[in-house]
Amino acid sequence: MTQSDRKIRVVLIGGSGYAGFEVVRWLLRHPNAKLVGVFGPSNELGPMEQFYPLLSAQTDLVQELFDADRVANIGADLAMLCVPHKVAMSYVPTLRAAGLRIIDWSADYRLTDAAVYEKWYSPHTDPDGLTDAVYGLPEYYRDAIAQASLVANPGCYPTCSILAIAPLLRAGLIKPDGIVINAISGVSGAGRTPHLKFHFPERNENFEPYGVGTHRHMPEIEQVLSDVSGQKAAVLFQPHLSPMDRGMLCSIYADPVDDVTDDQLTGALVQAYADEPFVRVRTDVLPASKYVATTNFCDVSADMVKGKVVLFSALDNVIKGASGQAIQNMNIMFGLDETTGLY
Amino acid sequence: MTQSDRKIRVVLIGGSGYAGFEVVRWLLRHPNAKLVGVFGPSNELGPMEQFYPLLSAQTDLVQELFDADRVANIGADLAMLCVPHKVAMSYVPTLRAAGLRIIDWSADYRLTDAAVYEKWYSPHTDPDGLTDAVYGLPEYYRDAIAQASLVANPGCYPTCSILAIAPLLRAGLIKPDGIVINAISGVSGAGRTPHLKFHFPERNENFEPYGVGTHRHMPEIEQVLSDVSGQKAAVLFQPHLSPMDRGMLCSIYADPVDDVTDDQLTGALVQAYADEPFVRVRTDVLPASKYVATTNFCDVSADMVKGKVVLFSALDNVIKGASGQAIQNMNIMFGLDETTGLY
Amino acid sequence: MTQSDRKIRVVLIGGSGYAGFEVVRWLLRHPNAKLVGVFGPSNELGPMEQFYPLLSAQTDLVQELFDADRVANIGADLAMLCVPHKVAMSYVPTLRAAGLRIIDWSADYRLTDAAVYEKWYSPHTDPDGLTDAVYGLPEYYRDAIAQASLVANPGCYPTCSILAIAPLLRAGLIKPDGIVINAISGVSGAGRTPHLKFHFPERNENFEPYGVGTHRHMPEIEQVLSDVSGQKAAVLFQPHLSPMDRGMLCSIYADPVDDVTDDQLTGALVQAYADEPFVRVRTDVLPASKYVATTNFCDVSADMVKGKVVLFSALDNVIKGASGQAIQNMNIMFGLDETTGLY
Amino acid sequence: MTQSDRKIRVVLIGGSGYAGFEVVRWLLRHPNAKLVGVFGPSNELGPMEQFYPLLSAQTDLVQELFDADRVANIGADLAMLCVPHKVAMSYVPTLRAAGLRIIDWSADYRLTDAAVYEKWYSPHTDPDGLTDAVYGLPEYYRDAIAQASLVANPGCYPTCSILAIAPLLRAGLIKPDGIVINAISGVSGAGRTPHLKFHFPERNENFEPYGVGTHRHMPEIEQVLSDVSGQKAAVLFQPHLSPMDRGMLCSIYADPVDDVTDDQLTGALVQAYADEPFVRVRTDVLPASKYVATTNFCDVSADMVKGKVVLFSALDNVIKGASGQAIQNMNIMFGLDETTGLY
Repeated sequence: MTQSDRKIRVVLIGGSGYAGFEVVRWLLRHPNAKLVGVFGPSNELGPMEQFYPLLSAQTDLVQELFDADRVANIGADLAMLCVPHKVAMSYVPTLRAAGLRIIDWSADYRLTDAAVYEKWYSPHTDPDGLTDAVYGLPEYYRDAIAQASLVANPGCYPTCSILAIAPLLRAGLIKPDGIVINAISGVSGAGRTPHLKFHFPERNENFEPYGVGTHRHMPEIEQVLSDVSGQKAAVLFQPHLSPMDRGMLCSIYADPVDDVTDDQLTGALVQAYADEPFVRVRTDVLPASKYVATTNFCDVSADMVKGKVVLFSALDNVIKGASGQAIQNMNIMFGLDETTGLY
Repeated sequence: MTQSDRKIRVVLIGGSGYAGFEVVRWLLRHPNAKLVGVFGPSNELGPMEQFYPLLSAQTDLVQELFDADRVANIGADLAMLCVPHKVAMSYVPTLRAAGLRIIDWSADYRLTDAAVYEKWYSPHTDPDGLTDAVYGLPEYYRDAIAQASLVANPGCYPTCSILAIAPLLRAGLIKPDGIVINAISGVSGAGRTPHLKFHFPERNENFEPYGVGTHRHMPEIEQVLSDVSGQKAAVLFQPHLSPMDRGMLCSIYADPVDDVTDDQLTGALVQAYADEPFVRVRTDVLPASKYVATTNFCDVSADMVKGKVVLFSALDNVIKGASGQAIQNMNIMFGLDETTGLY
Repeated sequence: MTQSDRKIRVVLIGGSGYAGFEVVRWLLRHPNAKLVGVFGPSNELGPMEQFYPLLSAQTDLVQELFDADRVANIGADLAMLCVPHKVAMSYVPTLRAAGLRIIDWSADYRLTDAAVYEKWYSPHTDPDGLTDAVYGLPEYYRDAIAQASLVANPGCYPTCSILAIAPLLRAGLIKPDGIVINAISGVSGAGRTPHLKFHFPERNENFEPYGVGTHRHMPEIEQVLSDVSGQKAAVLFQPHLSPMDRGMLCSIYADPVDDVTDDQLTGALVQAYADEPFVRVRTDVLPASKYVATTNFCDVSADMVKGKVVLFSALDNVIKGASGQAIQNMNIMFGLDETTGLY
Repeated sequence: MTQSDRKIRVVLIGGSGYAGFEVVRWLLRHPNAKLVGVFGPSNELGPMEQFYPLLSAQTDLVQELFDADRVANIGADLAMLCVPHKVAMSYVPTLRAAGLRIIDWSADYRLTDAAVYEKWYSPHTDPDGLTDAVYGLPEYYRDAIAQASLVANPGCYPTCSILAIAPLLRAGLIKPDGIVINAISGVSGAGRTPHLKFHFPERNENFEPYGVGTHRHMPEIEQVLSDVSGQKAAVLFQPHLSPMDRGMLCSIYADPVDDVTDDQLTGALVQAYADEPFVRVRTDVLPASKYVATTNFCDVSADMVKGKVVLFSALDNVIKGASGQAIQNMNIMFGLDETTGLY
């Protein structure tokens, strides 16, 4: 397929959540892709503008009942799945059999070891998919993504954490264990299902930790860090909710290997990301959530403080942490310039 | 009863919502009242600190299943009812029969005309209560409150609206119809039941009107304004939600009767509230929600602008609009200084 | 000039405020325009990324000292002026003499009558510019904008107000005087200069009116409503600040002419905006600030309530209320499709 | 002095900042203390209600020009100083000479070693005061506070950090070095001086680290932890700003000494604070800023996670982190029940 000839035809499975909403917006302005169908569960059908009044006059798309045959017959090149884990792996085999390439946003294909997946989630029902899946973090898996039939779009916390830590591990500047990731997220990261925890008067003016020792992003981070660095990494990942819509900041504390200077740390980041379009190594200001909000950038920094390596990384959890990264992966999969439609 | 001798014994019916929570806090610091029991529905039982971790170490009270006999036998002087309409009027007759005085926070006893109540709500099942009930706005019904066996605690929007408008109507400075009340409230006013409308990412950074022409506080406002001014008042009440926890501001536009000056308007407010402990007529700054937040004050102001009378009134919707006003009413009912425990 | 041949060359005067920042972002993603220079006052010079770290890696542009000759020699087609009033009219004559077309965001060229301008602002020093200037509200002045050498980009409040009111005035459905505009804005509308009023702890959880009877957008609204409807319009405009970054909602109350129905009101809005790309007449939901945030849309609605016409209009104050509207005007001035780069 | 006989007479030096405002509110409702004067610098004089319209009708106090003689002659028992460092130590000697006991909120008397103070601040000019000063953290210095003529009210971050860490250090459960304190604060902690950093549109929807390795609360925390545990403690303290008015959460990561269980950790906290009125050891929920907002409580918790000890502590930065703690200290200094006026 020559991209100049025609647009990538995309179907979206699960358009009524925040992830679906955002990817619809990105696809509407993408010059080389076209959203040709949206499908969802029986209790969430209807025009996209009904779920998101912001989309009125921008799209006539209607979320229709998911049916694997219909999706297969729509003539799409790519399916983006924004559905919960377990649901994803129940859809993927059929869609792949129908010849669609897939970007899956759930956790189902992120953990390469089914045993690890099953410890944190539930029995895995698509071992073939698991074998074929590529982890969709372009900065570390670009070549594999380009060829992949199935891309596992990373979690927001793992993207933010890995982009800061990986270069220092690779450069041998920090120890691979004892790494503490103190992460905060805006509330959109918790999804769109109402719950007392996310009720405005409970969340506003409130800052709160959660998931002590139990957050499922912990094994994902360890797997990828180990894979890209060739060392077994161990992290303590601790998330918190900050009273804001969107944005994420990871404050990371690691032990240096021997004597390490600020310059070495920053140098390793600069070297790792010199040619990356969406990672910015900051030395002028510290990363902050608002400096990356509404963009696909991840900002990172590194400093030595009292014998510890202190890293900060910031991204927009619904963009580089989800929808923007999916578009970036799509661009790679279909041979487009990686930044197409992302500025 | 001599107040110096013993404390008012209060039971709270419905402690798990925001209103209940706030009144618990006020009662805990009140020098002459004591909360002796909390009762609720079967699906919301348990220690108060379980609903509100903020209350830990401050109270051991447990919300127990509501049972009229138990409440009657607890030896209380006063029951505060923070339950939905319809539920209130199903509890009140029994509690009154048991000799308790009552402050009811629902709408069930606010509208004196059962026909009006039934048009906006549902059939009224306690006509005797309706006859005896006193509208709990101290600035206008203080004497009757002092004697009342049943006080209908006003809505937040009516309190805020009436305190600004009533003096000008009484003074004959504005016309009784065509009054526009453009009101905004913090989200706590919508209660504690999770719903997509009040999900943090939907509500944050969002300003939205609701209830066009249908808000049930409209007839309540008209009834009280008519009653205190002796003229049939007609208002257009339009509420909005502002992205904040608490606070309320009414911007009110009325037509003057003949020529009216700023001084006459402000003078009427000052005269009306000169001796009121909780209404402040502002000429130094405009009323704003933060100037009254966490207090039982209502701030009001008046100006002539381009031939219209422009009034502002601000209060904390969960205090002067609910819990603080209930405490103020309790103080009056039991012969205490009206400000006891309210600063 | 054929737009397919080359891009519109734009210079920005005043890039360090929020308006400048937003227009830089729009221009960076615009397919047919290119920002070729940024100029500012001596105390605000430096790389754009220094003012806005979000812009790092997206632009190397540096805000340089404003110098009319340099601007003239840069070979630009269009100058966008985001400078305060008075400063604007001191720059405009020179820039026009150098052959640049201009979109000015200040108030200097919005009021067609110099006497009115001088009553609300200061002496006017560019009568020729005032004569030539076209009010940049595309929905009402599209043809003149296309030919204009100088466009006065409207204020955010006037855009939001006029788009709701004008169709009903034109259709003879509402009276031209006694119109009350109760407006709220996010805090970005107050600009980027720190002040106690906009200090986070003063503004957060606060809702506050300001500028009673004195807001300079009042004469602008009246002028445009009068001009487009052929009747002398009189409005009472009352602004408020809501604790949020961006967004604007006008709640408008007008008197109907004789008997008017909801259908007539909505019908007049639908007819006025059937072919407009950026005005949406809402009947599914009420306009709300979040439904238009980050877009160039203005949402409007109309209802009859208790004998009054109630209108709502919402827009993003920094987009349709400023930068997006400027891009829309630029597209019209240079013969592009009006929506280019704006979705 | 018998407290039942008369009230403690308090003067406040520096009433126009947030700390002053809050302590005025606490003193207004305190049954055994009375604010008899407020003094400030020449550019911030006037009625307290002018600085804080919320205080209207609650106090007639006027902030008058600070003059040591006048303060001395006012017949006060206690001076609370809410002035910047350096200013505090220029006032304290005179006030002490006049016989006033003092609670100082600045950093001037917190660091017992003048050399450490001078490294982080400036030359110390009151060595006598430094010798006499008692660190005002009641949970650890209660007896000394009772006798003190000069109390150094702790910083908000140190209070929050120390209350979580100290019991575990004392119990020998964690190592005294390598402790990471990842702290977040609401924006009121930054004071009331407007600055672009704290301008609403810059701060809202933004989460940001600051002061990497340079925050002056680091030596204060280390000094107190070392003092109360008898071991030289070393901490890495990293603060962040969260978009909210008030509230503070410290997420603390420490290395356990040998094998330590959750029960041992929690047990040490429970034992330390069993009789403390304002520290709550949480096992039902994790500490969160909203569970302590508007109260003088500090909530703490401890868990073992992947070989690290993870502590959380939360308090209201303007209450237990400032004004409430000052009142608690005052109660101790004057022989009152420590909780008087603090619920």
